Amino acid sequence: MQTIQQSFKVEYSYAVFFTHYLFDQKNPLLKNFFNDYSEQGFQRKALVIADEGFLHHHPEIPGQISSYFSESVPQVQLASEIISVPGGETAKNDINTFNRLVEAVDMYGIDRHSFIIAIGGGAVLDLVGYAAAVSHRGIKLIRIPTTVLSQNDSGVGVKNSINFHGKKNFLGTFAPPVAVFNDLTFLKSLDDRDWRSGIAEAIKVALIKDAAFFEWMEEHVVALAHRDTESMAYLIHRCAEMHTDHIAGGDPFEFGSSRPLDFGHWAAHKLEYLTNFEIRHGEAVAIGIALDCVYAAKAGRLAEADLNRILEVMHKLGFELYHPKLSENDKINLRNGLQEFREHLGGQLTIMLLDKIGKGTEVHELDTGIISDAVDFLSAFQSQLTESKVLE
Amino acid sequence: MQTIQQSFKVEYSYAVFFTHYLFDQKNPLLKNFFNDYSEQGFQRKALVIADEGFLHHHPEIPGQISSYFSESVPQVQLASEIISVPGGETAKNDINTFNRLVEAVDMYGIDRHSFIIAIGGGAVLDLVGYAAAVSHRGIKLIRIPTTVLSQNDSGVGVKNSINFHGKKNFLGTFAPPVAVFNDLTFLKSLDDRDWRSGIAEAIKVALIKDAAFFEWMEEHVVALAHRDTESMAYLIHRCAEMHTDHIAGGDPFEFGSSRPLDFGHWAAHKLEYLTNFEIRHGEAVAIGIALDCVYAAKAGRLAEADLNRILEVMHKLGFELYHPKLSENDKINLRNGLQEFREHLGGQLTIMLLDKIGKGTEVHELDTGIISDAVDFLSAFQSQLTESKVLE
Ligand SMILES: NC(=O)c1ccc[n+]([C@@H]2O[C@H](COP(=O)([O-])OP(=O)(O)OC[C@H]3O[C@@H](n4cnc5c(N)ncnc54)[C@H](O)[C@@H]3O)[C@@H](O)[C@H]2O)c1
Ligand SMILES: NC(=O)c1ccc[n+]([C@@H]2O[C@H](COP(=O)([O-])OP(=O)(O)OC[C@H]3O[C@@H](n4cnc5c(N)ncnc54)[C@H](O)[C@@H]3O)[C@@H](O)[C@H]2O)c1
Ligand SMILES: [Zn+2]
Ligand SMILES: [Zn+2]
Repeated sequence: MQTIQQSFKVEYSYAVFFTHYLFDQKNPLLKNFFNDYSEQGFQRKALVIADEGFLHHHPEIPGQISSYFSESVPQVQLASEIISVPGGETAKNDINTFNRLVEAVDMYGIDRHSFIIAIGGGAVLDLVGYAAAVSHRGIKLIRIPTTVLSQNDSGVGVKNSINFHGKKNFLGTFAPPVAVFNDLTFLKSLDDRDWRSGIAEAIKVALIKDAAFFEWMEEHVVALAHRDTESMAYLIHRCAEMHTDHIAGGDPFEFGSSRPLDFGHWAAHKLEYLTNFEIRHGEAVAIGIALDCVYAAKAGRLAEADLNRILEVMHKLGFELYHPKLSENDKINLRNGLQEFREHLGGQLTIMLLDKIGKGTEVHELDTGIISDAVDFLSAFQSQLTESKVLE
Repeated sequence: MQTIQQSFKVEYSYAVFFTHYLFDQKNPLLKNFFNDYSEQGFQRKALVIADEGFLHHHPEIPGQISSYFSESVPQVQLASEIISVPGGETAKNDINTFNRLVEAVDMYGIDRHSFIIAIGGGAVLDLVGYAAAVSHRGIKLIRIPTTVLSQNDSGVGVKNSINFHGKKNFLGTFAPPVAVFNDLTFLKSLDDRDWRSGIAEAIKVALIKDAAFFEWMEEHVVALAHRDTESMAYLIHRCAEMHTDHIAGGDPFEFGSSRPLDFGHWAAHKLEYLTNFEIRHGEAVAIGIALDCVYAAKAGRLAEADLNRILEVMHKLGFELYHPKLSENDKINLRNGLQEFREHLGGQLTIMLLDKIGKGTEVHELDTGIISDAVDFLSAFQSQLTESKVLE
């Protein structure tokens, strides 16, 4: 009997809005969004799920949300409760938190034409995004990212996940949101580590795709380190734009094996594990980028002048560029990380290395001797910097 | 700051193959599929997960699979174990079964470039499809459906799901497979109820889309009732084709609210609940179709001659067209089902009713008085048939 050949395309579209004071009655952004989304005959509901760490610094937000909806978005029925979940990796580690969200979807009758509104850092957005994606095979998700990393990277993309039995991001889906609202005022309450950490992803995209953006960072490095909000606003916008362009231009749901946005990430992933997630994702990425750049220089790909510019920007932003776990166990742990990354990719290793600032090439092998030298280089580099600070 | 507008398309394609004796060494179908899928540099693995109820009747299959892979597909490394899971709704009810599958994905190092091969009825395919879709954000899924319903409907489509706290299909995703292999020899071991049950979905698509297919069924009704395999092969092929066409032609991931393939399903869903899933999905669908057709006739839409042809085909196939649960509690339970279906759709009720065989129209309201009359009609109709059988 004749084979049936099935093929079709699925279209996605969503906007990433930039704003200040999203839930202020005078801000029409959300109201306009919901008006545009209206459709005759539907009684849409909305369930808000927010990051406890965020709410701790913004206790006025739940009240503002209730007022905003009742006055400006009366056509959408808000669930009687705003659900709060622990912030950071805890959100993704405990399956009971996930279950609690699915139960709330059931209890408040949130259907496929209703909304889940996720407010928080990357971890909470990942958890809520996953719960929304699998409940009723996908409830419309609105993301309101509240950290630098989530505003410029994770929150504007198409992925979600939770951890399973301690395995990072083991369960997840590709599921675009229906809208993202980046409120820059929310970033003020971040601690310095989270402010800085998210910048690592911007350095990453600049290095592999946009030399001009990297030069802009060099010029604004002091402002960024001193938490200048205008500079950060530009950085987030440009990084988010490059991130969304990359997704749309390539392989949105990562069916292939090329993953240029994983630049600097193979060592970063291992380091997160080796430190038991005590260092932030962005802190690990900064070290991973440093390692792969030193490697590229030692391998004769990247000019030393470029290497120095890269290390300098990251150092001036306050990133540590070495972690003792890189050397532990004779660097075998780290080399295992490379092996695990290879397996994760399905057997074929693909690593992005820089040829110059703004341009990378994918390679399929790394030399473990050079990796080892690069680790020693970073160790010496960091301790020299620390000494010079002590002497200052 | 300027809003970023993201939009992109994701492409899917897969073939539905029809065959006999899929795992016989002489059958090149699977071998060819994996050869075409080969790509330099990947070490792909495969994990087979099979339906216990199926394996009970086909105990030779695991051995055949091992031999087939080691001789014909050496480039794909089969996990050392074929995992079996309980068949039927049990598969979807127990979260521990899902967890067991995800643990196996981890243990056997099944990555995004490897395969999960699901063998079984619709319930097992739904469970395995869900586990595959969310592990590592999506492992390539090969479906080998072993029931009529899964070969002509659920297994060739794009949905998966499990139940959550007793709520049917509460968790799931839209996730197309990379291939479907329909082996018609597997159907021989089905019991009569499962053989018949899957035919209900074919009646459904014929009634709303293809009068000629319905006429074919009228002509082959005796052969189908007597388990003629050639007739069944044609029925499955035509139904699968219409099903995949419908998905590709419309709204594959059901972002909108029109769901013509839910014809006959509002009452069917409620009846499955009311009987605690003791009746099969297809048995419930046959009753649901009968109810909505009697309704359409009573509402003056459908000619009585058409109604009689429809009821006659289903009766000759052996379907019961009435269940006492429809009348229970003064039909309030059933009417609640309509209300729940409305909520499920997001507030706007959309029900397909027939104008004639082969053509339906969507309506947004049903009259509860007419529903009640239709139930009484079916009750009388069925008891008359039963009496006449007793007299025979
Ligand atoms: N889905 C993706 O594509 C993707 C990409 C990169 C990273 N991630 C994930 O993102 C997570 C990291 O996200 P993150 O860097 O945003 O950190 P995070 O979500 O772990 O949050 C860090 C801390 O900041 C708190 N917080 C959040 N907003 C705050 C605010 N405005 N003021 C004060 N405190 C606030 C949180 O409660 C938490 O304690 C990781 O789980 C990582 O796996 C996902
Ligand atoms: N994903 C979708 O789009 C979709 C569509 C319709 C229905 N479904 C789901 O499909 C399920 C029903 O599937 P089904 O009708 O295939 O029944 P089933 O999967 O419940 O299987 C019925 C019984 O047949 C046994 N069995 C399977 N293959 C056999 C064989 N070849 N020989 C003998 N016994 C065999 C099973 O072990 C089970 O006991 C429901 O859970 C329903 O929700 C899903
Ligand atoms: Zn990252
Ligand atoms: Zn059905």
